[in-house]
Amino acid sequence: LAVFTPVSEEQLSRWLGQYAVGDSVTLEPIASGIENTNYFVDTRQGRYVLTLFERLGAAELPFYLDLMGHLARHGIPCPAPIIDLSGRNHSLLNGKPAALVTRLRGGSIDRPDADACAQLGGLLGRMHLAGRSFGGYLDNPRGAAWRRDAARGVSGFLDESDRALLQRELAEQESERYPDLPRGPIHADLFRDNALFDDARLSGVIDFYFAGIDCLLLDVAVCANDWCLVDPASDRRFDGARLTALLAAYAAVRSFESAERVAWQSMQRLAALRFWLSRLFDLHRPRSGVLVHAHDPDHFRNILALRSSEPTRELP
Amino acid sequence: LAVFTPVSEEQLSRWLGQYAVGDSVTLEPIASGIENTNYFVDTRQGRYVLTLFERLGAAELPFYLDLMGHLARHGIPCPAPIIDLSGRNHSLLNGKPAALVTRLRGGSIDRPDADACAQLGGLLGRMHLAGRSFGGYLDNPRGAAWRRDAARGVSGFLDESDRALLQRELAEQESERYPDLPRGPIHADLFRDNALFDDARLSGVIDFYFAGIDCLLLDVAVCANDWCLVDPASDRRFDGARLTALLAAYAAVRSFESAERVAWQSMQRLAALRFWLSRLFDLHRPRSGVLVHAHDPDHFRNILALRSSEPTRELP
Repeated sequence: LAVFTPVSEEQLSRWLGQYAVGDSVTLEPIASGIENTNYFVDTRQGRYVLTLFERLGAAELPFYLDLMGHLARHGIPCPAPIIDLSGRNHSLLNGKPAALVTRLRGGSIDRPDADACAQLGGLLGRMHLAGRSFGGYLDNPRGAAWRRDAARGVSGFLDESDRALLQRELAEQESERYPDLPRGPIHADLFRDNALFDDARLSGVIDFYFAGIDCLLLDVAVCANDWCLVDPASDRRFDGARLTALLAAYAAVRSFESAERVAWQSMQRLAALRFWLSRLFDLHRPRSGVLVHAHDPDHFRNILALRSSEPTRELP
Repeated sequence: LAVFTPVSEEQLSRWLGQYAVGDSVTLEPIASGIENTNYFVDTRQGRYVLTLFERLGAAELPFYLDLMGHLARHGIPCPAPIIDLSGRNHSLLNGKPAALVTRLRGGSIDRPDADACAQLGGLLGRMHLAGRSFGGYLDNPRGAAWRRDAARGVSGFLDESDRALLQRELAEQESERYPDLPRGPIHADLFRDNALFDDARLSGVIDFYFAGIDCLLLDVAVCANDWCLVDPASDRRFDGARLTALLAAYAAVRSFESAERVAWQSMQRLAALRFWLSRLFDLHRPRSGVLVHAHDPDHFRNILALRSSEPTRELP
């Protein structure tokens, strides 16, 4: 965890007084966050998550919170920001921008089966449909400009072969840019740990704080690269049954366009590149004073290398 | 139930296709509604209530649905209308205006204890606070004009003593009108069967379709007259402990004003009068072709008579 901002019972009680949710009964820090300080907050009226934003400024927050509110109103099971009595969905708490959102039931699963992948694909498709009418705009903060900066920052730490792989992929993605693909709000970080299951039912999608406007297909590729591997630790080829389940369920909600079929393999590589870069950056260029549990970058280097050589699997 | 509109699986499936909630898994009629046709609808994504409006027209619906959405966004546990992919919160289904709302957990309780009354009082207070910023307007449809009409329609069916009680109360309420009391959106029908409890926790308030703008204190009086009787069937005096619990919990959220203290007993009578009249009307003037299970009007006649003679209990 990067920074953890303490919140006293008294601070919370005063802050919650601005809401119509009742007094807090419990306040419990959540250890698993990476970017923000999170607490479970229970009142007798309901169960909530309190987030203090450590990285995002108050200028970027409306995009994320409004998007979550928009999706929740459309029935997408995601945290819904609670509006306070002044009509705001965030305000300062202990000096940090803070929001109260609904707490969803369930927990994440490590080893999704084909049914879980199908549920994810369907939900992702519905999230993309519901996102179409969202009025906010924020370029994917992990887009082309960020990739160039991040690559400059880390390439000195790579051996020759990795540097060549990185440069080749950057150049290919630079020449692509996918101008013809359908775009919209994407989650952009929908790994297994950002999905909740309750009794084998996909009960929620959380942590929208890497969302942005980008190609919808990028969301699909990020999910495929995390949910559909034969074995995340040792065999990063796609598991055919789970990949087919994910893609077919998505396509049943939103049909893929022909330009997306053409771009599919390249998009899988882009999704791998994005997380290879961010993991390299967290490893080699940690923010000062910040302790991040650095995930192994090689996982995504390996996926990228594999997706460059694997035969293309067609979209349904 | 007044009218029950059938919905076929195929009609539902087509209608749900306008939403981002997934395909229906079950469709189950709810027998307990009086005014509308209700179904439980489950998809793998979530649990919903489908309502087809039999009495309200599409012109009045926005007030109710927007109010529920407003309150839900503020954390009030009430059904939240799901927005469809065209941005609407209702549209026609089998020729009737229809809405899909979230399904809340829990069931109603017959014999609330003081803790349940305290939870209700707190929630009612928070609902009133959250309602302050609601922009919609609809006069309480069971207000002064309706009372006059209803009384005209039923007084011929009353014996002399009841007619005298009715006329006296109508005249007193006519001379009142409570211009100085705080007003806002009120539920106006928050009987025990419109509140859900889950494991002794008040988990929801439902059925907002008699809501309107009126005195906040009227909501408190409606609740007191139903939740705080010694025995609803035989002894309609207030149970001191439960009434105190309700009022104290409400006042902890929103302090009563001095004008409300003055009006409190008269408001209890108004709350009784309103339901005496509607029950008389349902009994003696049933809408043609409509089978309503008529509740006993005498219950509220007795409450009204009692509130006219009982010593005033002061608001906290």
